[in-house]
Amino acid sequence: DFNYAFQNDIKPAFGVKDQVLQQFLANGIVNWGHTERLLSDGMDLANTAKNGKRTHLVTALLEGATGAGKSALAAKIAMDAQCPCVRLINPQALIDHGEAGKCQAIVRAFEEAHKSSQSVVVVDNIERLLDYNPIGPRFSNAVCQTLLVQLRVNPPKGRRCLVLATSSNKDVLRQMGLLGCFDKMLHVPTLRSNTHVAQALKGLGGVDERDISQISSDIGSRELSLPIKRMIHVAGVAETTCGSKGFASKFISLLEEDESLAGAGSKFSRSNF
Amino acid sequence: DFNYAFQNDIKPAFGVKDQVLQQFLANGIVNWGHTERLLSDGMDLANTAKNGKRTHLVTALLEGATGAGKSALAAKIAMDAQCPCVRLINPQALIDHGEAGKCQAIVRAFEEAHKSSQSVVVVDNIERLLDYNPIGPRFSNAVCQTLLVQLRVNPPKGRRCLVLATSSNKDVLRQMGLLGCFDKMLHVPTLRSNTHVAQALKGLGGVDERDISQISSDIGSRELSLPIKRMIHVAGVAETTCGSKGFASKFISLLEEDESLAGAGSKFSRSNF
Amino acid sequence: DFNYAFQNDIKPAFGVKDQVLQQFLANGIVNWGHTERLLSDGMDLANTAKNGKRTHLVTALLEGATGAGKSALAAKIAMDAQCPCVRLINPQALIDHGEAGKCQAIVRAFEEAHKSSQSVVVVDNIERLLDYNPIGPRFSNAVCQTLLVQLRVNPPKGRRCLVLATSSNKDVLRQMGLLGCFDKMLHVPTLRSNTHVAQALKGLGGVDERDISQISSDIGSRELSLPIKRMIHVAGVAETTCGSKGFASKFISLLEEDESLAGAGSKFSRSNF
Amino acid sequence: DFNYAFQNDIKPAFGVKDQVLQQFLANGIVNWGHTERLLSDGMDLANTAKNGKRTHLVTALLEGATGAGKSALAAKIAMDAQCPCVRLINPQALIDHGEAGKCQAIVRAFEEAHKSSQSVVVVDNIERLLDYNPIGPRFSNAVCQTLLVQLRVNPPKGRRCLVLATSSNKDVLRQMGLLGCFDKMLHVPTLRSNTHVAQALKGLGGVDERDISQISSDIGSRELSLPIKRMIHVAGVAETTCGSKGFASKFISLLEEDESLAGAGSKFSRSNF
Amino acid sequence: DFNYAFQNDIKPAFGVKDQVLQQFLANGIVNWGHTERLLSDGMDLANTAKNGKRTHLVTALLEGATGAGKSALAAKIAMDAQCPCVRLINPQALIDHGEAGKCQAIVRAFEEAHKSSQSVVVVDNIERLLDYNPIGPRFSNAVCQTLLVQLRVNPPKGRRCLVLATSSNKDVLRQMGLLGCFDKMLHVPTLRSNTHVAQALKGLGGVDERDISQISSDIGSRELSLPIKRMIHVAGVAETTCGSKGFASKFISLLEEDESLAGAGSKFSRSNF
Amino acid sequence: DFNYAFQNDIKPAFGVKDQVLQQFLANGIVNWGHTERLLSDGMDLANTAKNGKRTHLVTALLEGATGAGKSALAAKIAMDAQCPCVRLINPQALIDHGEAGKCQAIVRAFEEAHKSSQSVVVVDNIERLLDYNPIGPRFSNAVCQTLLVQLRVNPPKGRRCLVLATSSNKDVLRQMGLLGCFDKMLHVPTLRSNTHVAQALKGLGGVDERDISQISSDIGSRELSLPIKRMIHVAGVAETTCGSKGFASKFISLLEEDESLAGAGSKFSRSNF
Ligand SMILES: Nc1ncnc2c1ncn2[C@@H]1O[C@H](COP(=O)(O)OP(=O)(O)OP(=O)(O)O)[C@@H](O)[C@H]1O
Ligand SMILES: Nc1ncnc2c1ncn2[C@@H]1O[C@H](COP(=O)(O)OP(=O)(O)OP(=O)(O)O)[C@@H](O)[C@H]1O
Ligand SMILES: Nc1ncnc2c1ncn2[C@@H]1O[C@H](COP(=O)(O)OP(=O)(O)OP(=O)(O)O)[C@@H](O)[C@H]1O
Ligand SMILES: Nc1ncnc2c1ncn2[C@@H]1O[C@H](COP(=O)(O)OP(=O)(O)OP(=O)(O)O)[C@@H](O)[C@H]1O
Ligand SMILES: Nc1ncnc2c1ncn2[C@@H]1O[C@H](COP(=O)(O)OP(=O)(O)OP(=O)(O)O)[C@@H](O)[C@H]1O
Ligand SMILES: Nc1ncnc2c1ncn2[C@@H]1O[C@H](COP(=O)(O)OP(=O)(O)OP(=O)(O)O)[C@@H](O)[C@H]1O
Ligand SMILES: [Mg+2]
Ligand SMILES: [Mg+2]
Ligand SMILES: [Mg+2]
Ligand SMILES: [Mg+2]
Ligand SMILES: [Mg+2]
Ligand SMILES: [Mg+2]
Repeated sequence: DFNYAFQNDIKPAFGVKDQVLQQFLANGIVNWGHTERLLSDGMDLANTAKNGKRTHLVTALLEGATGAGKSALAAKIAMDAQCPCVRLINPQALIDHGEAGKCQAIVRAFEEAHKSSQSVVVVDNIERLLDYNPIGPRFSNAVCQTLLVQLRVNPPKGRRCLVLATSSNKDVLRQMGLLGCFDKMLHVPTLRSNTHVAQALKGLGGVDERDISQISSDIGSRELSLPIKRMIHVAGVAETTCGSKGFASKFISLLEEDESLAGAGSKFSRSNF
Repeated sequence: DFNYAFQNDIKPAFGVKDQVLQQFLANGIVNWGHTERLLSDGMDLANTAKNGKRTHLVTALLEGATGAGKSALAAKIAMDAQCPCVRLINPQALIDHGEAGKCQAIVRAFEEAHKSSQSVVVVDNIERLLDYNPIGPRFSNAVCQTLLVQLRVNPPKGRRCLVLATSSNKDVLRQMGLLGCFDKMLHVPTLRSNTHVAQALKGLGGVDERDISQISSDIGSRELSLPIKRMIHVAGVAETTCGSKGFASKFISLLEEDESLAGAGSKFSRSNF
Repeated sequence: DFNYAFQNDIKPAFGVKDQVLQQFLANGIVNWGHTERLLSDGMDLANTAKNGKRTHLVTALLEGATGAGKSALAAKIAMDAQCPCVRLINPQALIDHGEAGKCQAIVRAFEEAHKSSQSVVVVDNIERLLDYNPIGPRFSNAVCQTLLVQLRVNPPKGRRCLVLATSSNKDVLRQMGLLGCFDKMLHVPTLRSNTHVAQALKGLGGVDERDISQISSDIGSRELSLPIKRMIHVAGVAETTCGSKGFASKFISLLEEDESLAGAGSKFSRSNF
Repeated sequence: DFNYAFQNDIKPAFGVKDQVLQQFLANGIVNWGHTERLLSDGMDLANTAKNGKRTHLVTALLEGATGAGKSALAAKIAMDAQCPCVRLINPQALIDHGEAGKCQAIVRAFEEAHKSSQSVVVVDNIERLLDYNPIGPRFSNAVCQTLLVQLRVNPPKGRRCLVLATSSNKDVLRQMGLLGCFDKMLHVPTLRSNTHVAQALKGLGGVDERDISQISSDIGSRELSLPIKRMIHVAGVAETTCGSKGFASKFISLLEEDESLAGAGSKFSRSNF
Repeated sequence: DFNYAFQNDIKPAFGVKDQVLQQFLANGIVNWGHTERLLSDGMDLANTAKNGKRTHLVTALLEGATGAGKSALAAKIAMDAQCPCVRLINPQALIDHGEAGKCQAIVRAFEEAHKSSQSVVVVDNIERLLDYNPIGPRFSNAVCQTLLVQLRVNPPKGRRCLVLATSSNKDVLRQMGLLGCFDKMLHVPTLRSNTHVAQALKGLGGVDERDISQISSDIGSRELSLPIKRMIHVAGVAETTCGSKGFASKFISLLEEDESLAGAGSKFSRSNF
Repeated sequence: DFNYAFQNDIKPAFGVKDQVLQQFLANGIVNWGHTERLLSDGMDLANTAKNGKRTHLVTALLEGATGAGKSALAAKIAMDAQCPCVRLINPQALIDHGEAGKCQAIVRAFEEAHKSSQSVVVVDNIERLLDYNPIGPRFSNAVCQTLLVQLRVNPPKGRRCLVLATSSNKDVLRQMGLLGCFDKMLHVPTLRSNTHVAQALKGLGGVDERDISQISSDIGSRELSLPIKRMIHVAGVAETTCGSKGFASKFISLLEEDESLAGAGSKFSRSNF
């Protein structure tokens, strides 16, 4: 386990602490259809990295819509991999570090990881690490170059490393040549059907069975694209503000307002945001 | 109340003082049709943030035309939410702080808010915070990235936070991906009919009933798009300069000159400004 | 009067001295048709700012062609307003101050004005303040943002302020969103007819009645667009160089050469400069 | 005269010394058709500036092709104006001064000029002062803004100033709004006919009458556009390298090679350089 | 041998150590069809550089797809050339050196090489050295200019030098004029047929003969473009994760997923990454 | 001679030493058809500069393809001119000097040259001096402006100066206005026919007469564009690697591979590099 690891391997000098990855899992992992497959793919990656005869470095990208659950899944896989060293490169923690500080943090995280026999490096939210802005576009080329180089640095002889990165902007990464740095692409989907929603609400807990049934039938076969994080938020708002109208109908009307759920007359989808 | 809050919670180290938010309400809140609904939506947001089981962070954007009343409404909601800690991020106060200073002020305001059990953060006039200029366009990407990250930082366990931002440039925010950071969009409309104007003038006080009637009938069903702030200014100018012509006709002619009010031969609307 | 003001109100720490505004009036104000109306509109603005119940801040832009007389009129109105504090933001005085220095000067001028019960702030030649160059275009976004914010800062309770700005590039100001910061637009026209020229030459003094008659008939109904400043210059050149040809015909031929005055075969107008 | 001036007026602290302007006249002023008219126009400008009742500042631009003689003519007019103070703003002398240094030099030259009762400021080769490069285009906006402001600064009461600027890139100056800063435009033409060339060669001296006749007849009515500076250079090369071929035919063949002179089969003109 | 060289020639002050070049050969050189020809071409280059009467400097570029084996082949040729001095310019080692640091490292590597009677300079991954990013595009022009100059600097009299550079972005190098700096271009191809794959898997070792046969027949005449580095990785993943499905079919399905191998319904090729 | 010059004139404080110009002539000057004419044109330039009555400054540009022999010819002419002072502005020597350092070096070289009664300034490889990169394009405008000014600075009275510059990018120089700074353009061509090649190989020495004959007949009337520097390199490679195939056929096949020599099926020419 982690405690054991920290005591018997190297000490984390920078970056991830167990609780930071835990924070990514604030709402746990609710099973809703694609979850199991994604976690099993993640375990395959971890196995290949830890035990492969010819593969001492495995790099994977979890990509999908905003709120699809990329960071949560990366954290879960990183923790389940049970490596003695886990390093997180986290834009939130690097917010006032500037371009050079970010580059340094990336280099250092990999250096530390490479000192351990087995390590996981989580590179969360690459587009924020890059300070990417579609207007221009603007971004930090220094951070980009650092990633382009670091993602291909082999760990020293006898060391093994799994890299898990997340991004909601696959196209930009492709244009920058960053996609070519990953051995594996894992797409993290949004909830697309009433079955997905029903399963997720059940897993979430605290929602009445009848509400779930009604929601499921209200959605029916209408078009839906709902990130899990958004679903949890909407459920929260519905709870607080439904009053006498009832949870189910408030939940549905919030989705429609959001345009996650196609309704009559809806013109713009939330994905336009 | 606020005094209680300040004594029993944390001390405001930076930013908002009660009177700054008060300044946003220099002309009070006059009821003119959409006002009640907007304030009630605001209270729902506050409730969800303060009491929601699953929602510890709620972020909302008040957007609408220049002078529509966005800052005044944000201030009103922030004060009515009765949270022990309120922080204001105010471009006027940050005018000579430079890019780095603005980023720091943003980070610090959120950090302080997150130290309180319940907080409101008002981010006023995002496009000014961004130093946005449509020619180029130019803007501070550093400020933008800081907002993109900060607007999604969850308060620590057990803490709750409501974020209220204002902007009159929704399109730019969408392009930069900032819209996706908000849980809720509140559109603040302009006055569009003679009823709106009559109601607002009545609420404003000091205007003769007959003048209001005449203005109402002069507007009739002509097209109108008048921000509340502009209406108050125009009423002020009319008062001072109407002389013998009478308030009502001066008021109407100022609106026509302004092109807030469609008249014969009007070619350019003030919105072109 | 001014002396009184300076002794009984605050002392001018920076910027305008009475004589600088006087310099803008080097050639006085000659009455030529639109002058009276413009000055009376200016007085209305001053009245509204000084006495309006609801209007403690009034901002106006005097815009028109190069040399149309914008700065002179702004100076005249500012002095006639008889406020105890007048502040001038003058690109000529800020020429070697750099971007930051200009921003500071702007902020300071407003701060000082806001300390007085009644103040006028003259912001002369906004495009020069912005270091605007149509090639690129290039300009100081920092100065632009400072103006965008400062032009909307309300004076503190009980204080009143009139802002008079000048510009010959209204389009650029519109694009930057600066037009929306002004409560009132005052267009300063050029001389367009022989009547205008005759009236102005008469007012100028020292020109023979017969010359004026001849000039008036020479212009006849030809198209004309002549800024007052240019007219005064052309009259000066004609005086010095007419020799025996006579003032009137030299004056006319200079206008034609200038292409202020449409003539046979004229292809480019001076406004192309 | 100059000596008198320097002793009885102010001392030149910076910039022009008599001999620098003299250098611009290394090859003197040869009379070739347009020369007299240009010099007389220059004297008119000087008179207007020095004696005009209403004109205390006169600004003129000498513009024309590279080598057309702009700097030489500006120097001649400046010296003939017989003002106690002459200041030269010279890109060659400012080559390693950087943007800020150039701006300062400009401001200082005008300041010094304005201390004298009568002054001439020569602003040579504006496009070099601007570091103008058509690729981009690139240029110093700071220098441009300084010129835009300085060219309009009135000398203090009782002082008079003539500004003579030169440029071979009128279009760029127009785009930047610099043309509008000049009261007068003087076009400096190239030699366009055999008469021009014959007259200039005669004035130059040391060329055989028969050679001049032959050159004149060789040019005949062919198209020609030859800057005076180039003509002097070509005459020099012809002298040194003609050998037995004779001066005239060498001179003509050099012009053809140059494509200043239209010949059979010439496709590109030197002006394409 | 190397040891001898280091003892009797100059000491490596910077850059390559034998083991770094060794790292480029982590997976050895497996013979798969084009390998021999490439190595023999490399030896020709080395001979020409070391023994040519008129050729004291030979510069070659190994270019090809990502993972095609460019760095490995350059390292092999550099070591086989048996020169007393080998210098490596390696973007991985220069990651935090900045633009100036990279330029200096390049200059110094060449300077050191030129001190030896015979030297090899390996310039690995030019596009990373240039910090090249296709968005913009952005790159370090300083590094580019340094290469443009250094690649043409002749070693001093009596010294000889072989330069081996690698790049996967030939087009960009051509646009920048860098291609013109190379005497020779060596294209490093990907595996294009089942024969190539069979030969490479055999050389790799540890793969069952029957699996190789099956893979070869599965590929058949389908279109294939597989870099050797990717093939080795895919073999590694197949080994670890094939389970009972068998190595061959897992290997094939990974290639199809990768889109290195054309399959039914494949729309995007990995080269789009 | 040079020694005499250095002892009796000024000492070279910076830049060229005799041996650096000698380095440009590492392979001597082989006579191959256009060589004599170019050298004689060069001597004419030197004569005009040294003895012309009206021409104290002569500036010439040697332009042509990469490797055409521009630098070698400039060096030869500079040395043959027998001036007491020769200055070289050499991008290779200025590689780590930065923009400002390059400008300074240029200014200083001219200053030193102008101290001598007769001087030659060689400005080698202008596009490298400018750090020119076609992507963007990017270049140092400061260096460009310095050249634009310096190339026109007349030496002081009684001093004489010849400037020889080289460039393989005439178009860029024209766009920047640099071409207009040269009195004379000398085009340095590539070898275009079998006669050229035969003559050059003969001059080079060490190549068998029969090989030359065979090469000449192999080329026949095929299209050819071969810079002299490339020809010497190709001859060197052919010598070292021809083995039993024979020099001539190896030489021809290298030219074909290079695409300097049109062959069946050749699609891209080396000039595309
Ligand atoms: N099956 C699931 N997969 C992923 N996340 C889940 C799942 N079930 C519940 N969650 C919760 O949903 C949230 C997903 O948010 P997360 O921040 O991981 O999304 P994201 O895709 O990284 O968003 P962003 O694009 O903003 O970075 C987390 O709070 C997580 O605890
Ligand atoms: N119903 C109302 N809603 C909003 N503001 C009101 C209302 N009634 C009166 N007001 C007054 O109208 C003014 C609205 O101005 P405010 O600065 O809030 O507008 P804004 O939309 O933020 O403008 P800007 O785009 O310039 O930031 C305030 O002075 C406020 O006191
Ligand atoms: N009726 C008038 N209106 C304005 N100016 C007048 C009038 N009569 C005379 N003048 C004189 O005309 C000149 C107008 O010049 P002024 O600098 O004010 O023009 P401007 O429009 O500000 O020019 P610029 O675009 O260059 O700033 C002043 O010298 C002023 O004294
Ligand atoms: N009539 C003339 N007009 C102008 N210059 C003449 C005349 N006769 C002879 N010259 C000589 O011709 C040369 C003109 O060169 P000058 O440098 O003045 O041209 P320019 O137009 O300023 O060139 P550039 O565009 O390079 O600045 C001078 O050496 C001057 O002495
Ligand atoms: N025949 C071969 N040619 C080249 N490399 C081979 C060969 N056989 C095995 N390899 C191995 O394949 C790998 C090739 O990877 P290498 O890094 O050299 O590729 P690359 O083209 O430089 O990739 P990149 O574009 O990422 O720089 C090395 O690990 C090398 O040991
Ligand atoms: N007739 C000749 N003309 C020029 N150079 C020759 C001639 N004969 C032999 N050479 C040799 O050819 C080489 C020409 O190379 P040089 O560097 O001068 O070309 P370049 O055009 O300056 O190339 P670059 O474009 O790379 O600067 C020199 O080594 C020179 O000694
Ligand atoms: Mg995430
Ligand atoms: Mg607001
Ligand atoms: Mg003005
Ligand atoms: Mg000149
Ligand atoms: Mg490589
Ligand atoms: Mg060269």
